[in-house]
Amino acid sequence: MPPPSAIHVEAVTDTAGITLPDPLTAPIKSNEIYGRRKKTAKGQWSVAAPSDSVNFRYSPRGGDKPMAKRWDHFVSHEASIRKGNSLKQAAKFLGNPGIISLGGGLPSSEYFPFEELSLKVPSRGHFSEAETQESGVVIKVGKHDLANNKSIFDIATAFNYGQGSGAAQLLRFVTEHTEYVHSPPYEDWRCTLSIGSTSALDMTLRMLSRPGDMMLSEEYTFATAVETALPLGVRVVGVSMDAEGLLPEAMDQLLSNWDASVHGSAKPHLLYTVPTGQNPTGATQSTERRKAIYKVCQKHDIIIIEDEPYYFLQMQPYTGPDAPEVAPPSSHEEFLDTLVPSLLSMDVDGRVVRLDSFSKVISPGSRIGWVTASEQLVKIYQRHADVSSQGPSGMAQLILWKLLDEHWGHEGYLDWLMHIRLGYTSRRNVILNACEKYLPKDVVSWVPPMAGMFHWMKVDFTKHPDYPAKPIETIEEEIFMRVIEKNALVMRGSWFYANAEEDHQTMFFRATYAAAPAEKIDEGIRRFGEAIRAEFGLETNSNGQ
Amino acid sequence: MPPPSAIHVEAVTDTAGITLPDPLTAPIKSNEIYGRRKKTAKGQWSVAAPSDSVNFRYSPRGGDKPMAKRWDHFVSHEASIRKGNSLKQAAKFLGNPGIISLGGGLPSSEYFPFEELSLKVPSRGHFSEAETQESGVVIKVGKHDLANNKSIFDIATAFNYGQGSGAAQLLRFVTEHTEYVHSPPYEDWRCTLSIGSTSALDMTLRMLSRPGDMMLSEEYTFATAVETALPLGVRVVGVSMDAEGLLPEAMDQLLSNWDASVHGSAKPHLLYTVPTGQNPTGATQSTERRKAIYKVCQKHDIIIIEDEPYYFLQMQPYTGPDAPEVAPPSSHEEFLDTLVPSLLSMDVDGRVVRLDSFSKVISPGSRIGWVTASEQLVKIYQRHADVSSQGPSGMAQLILWKLLDEHWGHEGYLDWLMHIRLGYTSRRNVILNACEKYLPKDVVSWVPPMAGMFHWMKVDFTKHPDYPAKPIETIEEEIFMRVIEKNALVMRGSWFYANAEEDHQTMFFRATYAAAPAEKIDEGIRRFGEAIRAEFGLETNSNGQ
Repeated sequence: MPPPSAIHVEAVTDTAGITLPDPLTAPIKSNEIYGRRKKTAKGQWSVAAPSDSVNFRYSPRGGDKPMAKRWDHFVSHEASIRKGNSLKQAAKFLGNPGIISLGGGLPSSEYFPFEELSLKVPSRGHFSEAETQESGVVIKVGKHDLANNKSIFDIATAFNYGQGSGAAQLLRFVTEHTEYVHSPPYEDWRCTLSIGSTSALDMTLRMLSRPGDMMLSEEYTFATAVETALPLGVRVVGVSMDAEGLLPEAMDQLLSNWDASVHGSAKPHLLYTVPTGQNPTGATQSTERRKAIYKVCQKHDIIIIEDEPYYFLQMQPYTGPDAPEVAPPSSHEEFLDTLVPSLLSMDVDGRVVRLDSFSKVISPGSRIGWVTASEQLVKIYQRHADVSSQGPSGMAQLILWKLLDEHWGHEGYLDWLMHIRLGYTSRRNVILNACEKYLPKDVVSWVPPMAGMFHWMKVDFTKHPDYPAKPIETIEEEIFMRVIEKNALVMRGSWFYANAEEDHQTMFFRATYAAAPAEKIDEGIRRFGEAIRAEFGLETNSNGQ
Repeated sequence: MPPPSAIHVEAVTDTAGITLPDPLTAPIKSNEIYGRRKKTAKGQWSVAAPSDSVNFRYSPRGGDKPMAKRWDHFVSHEASIRKGNSLKQAAKFLGNPGIISLGGGLPSSEYFPFEELSLKVPSRGHFSEAETQESGVVIKVGKHDLANNKSIFDIATAFNYGQGSGAAQLLRFVTEHTEYVHSPPYEDWRCTLSIGSTSALDMTLRMLSRPGDMMLSEEYTFATAVETALPLGVRVVGVSMDAEGLLPEAMDQLLSNWDASVHGSAKPHLLYTVPTGQNPTGATQSTERRKAIYKVCQKHDIIIIEDEPYYFLQMQPYTGPDAPEVAPPSSHEEFLDTLVPSLLSMDVDGRVVRLDSFSKVISPGSRIGWVTASEQLVKIYQRHADVSSQGPSGMAQLILWKLLDEHWGHEGYLDWLMHIRLGYTSRRNVILNACEKYLPKDVVSWVPPMAGMFHWMKVDFTKHPDYPAKPIETIEEEIFMRVIEKNALVMRGSWFYANAEEDHQTMFFRATYAAAPAEKIDEGIRRFGEAIRAEFGLETNSNGQ
């Protein structure tokens, strides 16, 4: 699927001395990443070896990219007094040739009761479950593959202790992937592994907030984010949205007119945003929207927590129930071109803390994601990880690394992401077609989602027979219970308020097309439509509902 | 190795109505656990199904055990205001027959690129690496084993989202194991999975401490524990120790005479202790010592954080270099009888938060442990896990569960623990024999460790030629660097001070026998001895050192 290997041969400067694209910093093709890898000493891959993602970047550094701004003024007390692990003072001697360490209390791998691990996985380009059953490839990990020079990662290494940053093996892969996809435009960006973005948000807030702070987010937002923030004393303030998500003008206005005495809190310095396929609204910020949001964040000195689990669930354009589908991208480069650029890719200040996750694209049970941010923030994050999570499970890291780096490689992983894109496109189309068929459009309206897992349906509560005699949320609850009575489950919009105390003159329901099979999605929406009609006292439609 | 199956047949009461041992609450044999399991609805094992460890206890409840005390007066602000996940309000409807859920945003397992996972592991009783290579058994997990009624855990389930408490499958195993080994003497104890004891300590402190608190611990303690506590504003105050660890009289005296104005903090309400094979001192508290410590904690209303990674690294008695070895335990019951009882097993108040871990007995890379505490505290812990770690990696949980519960079972796991016991015994003997051979006993002294990974060597600094001209820590550093020069690495005792500001008129070095092979341990200690002799200006010994 990817184009054949090609080598850039452009000259760096022309004869007049004008700088042309540098072949080493210009965008490269996905099949060129491995050729750019630097040689690495074998010790880099050993048990709990420290590593720094800067060593895994393939573009040369020291160019004219700006350095990240410093964020000392936002760093919490907890984070600012946390020191590195004192026992690591000893680690610097471990490189001495022939040294015998009776230092670190690491168990010997002879007591790991695992001799071999095998995984049957899809071969590249044959990704469906049915194909995998037929033509899946078995990849094997031996206990001592590293010592035996069979691989750079094995059971003896991955099943022992690791670093808070994660293992160098997987850290290299995600660093390369991040550079390939986002190419952050500042010099000192770093990656570090997380144990998933929920934990990464918890740790980021403990690093960058203080009790009493307020944090900005979309007015409807991921409920867990609010529930993570509140116990830390951080309240969330919602910013108005439209179909493209958060409105930069509304945010600018909110911040420009911020009155600490009204809000009971100093002006916020954090924005939590899900730019792509936002949960719950499904909204995706356009390129222009992102640029405008970034500019407002620069103006008001806001750090952006860019939570992007759905980035690679950007789908094919929706053409409607009867129109022909758009042809899928034919190369990795074309695929990347279809994706809305990330805030990280515009981040000249190093003010984005980007949270990536394997949960939606490989497996949530891996509990592995990664954080990309400035060196200052990543180092603080890692110090915390060293005394809390200690990094993701080595078992899970080994499984992901074998599949992603050693088996598929970057090209195969991009193929897989394109495969998922089409899978979600077809699921999204199923739910939209069902909505067209079963929902009364004078009461329920929606914008086709471009990304993510969620379909967000607006309900015109003003047409409800009990409005305005009953409050909106009571009507919402009655509709919810009526849907349950019809034996379907959708989520109430009010569960996603960024701040339940704010006034909301809107009513929404969220349905996911990610989980159920197509016929269940169709039937679920049919039942939802039935419930809506019953609640609003409407006739059955032409489909007999 | 375990005894054959046996059924208890004693009568519950005699004819005079006097209560005799209840066959259902009296200690049972390891092979009886599975027979005691209650039937469980299949839904219990499904994706992210909620579970409560109380359902996995095999002894009947509602007897005359006391309920745990309430700890509201110690619960932090953060923990007290954290609410349960709001989206779980929807989960209660998922049990409705035939309901179609478009609710939770869980990805479909069709997008998990894993069809099968296999593990080659030791068969029961043939545990060594060499035996495993020869006679290891391959255990397989299919993607849809649960739906296909082949197993109660599979890839489709474990690789999806889970609960903060961990998966019911593994939670059941650790709950049964905990009841079998510790049989906590109060009614409402619970277990919940952790992502390892380092994180469990971090989460426990966030639940039970406030900035400005002081926490008690052994005067030499696990450096990471101190480094976890300090950024939370919790300073550690060391309690004097002897060869049996923490001294209860010293603790009582410290607390009885506590002067908040001197310590700059209110009287502590937390004790962090590693009762077995303590890190770094290797000390193991005797049964009597534990009882006395528990009593002091009752007197002063102290919650005990019992961190026990080394509990099953209790070794055979040390008989010296030339004496015959003691015969290993011949049954599981005899094995358990050799273990010093845990603080949890004495915990009539529910004041122990016990941290267990698979790191030292199966694999640190699993990042799986568990917490046992009162229902009140476990529920608070789980609520935090739901918005941070989200529980351990499902990949790792699946691997451990397949091995421990489905393949080995409780009996096989106990066999494995007995196997490890002998492995560590022989490693411990290697280091002690080397110390006998190579160390000058007029300067270095030690107590043979009974448990854990660490050998703690006391150095008589008063015999050093530079004492008292140089401070103790300077001499310690010079010795450390001399050992490095001889190409060995041991840890400096001062790195383990509970509180570096306290006065320490002692000098120690810590060596581990867990990691290196026998000949390296021997040679490492030889080099250490050489460095000590050089530093103290001593003659070489009869072994030519």
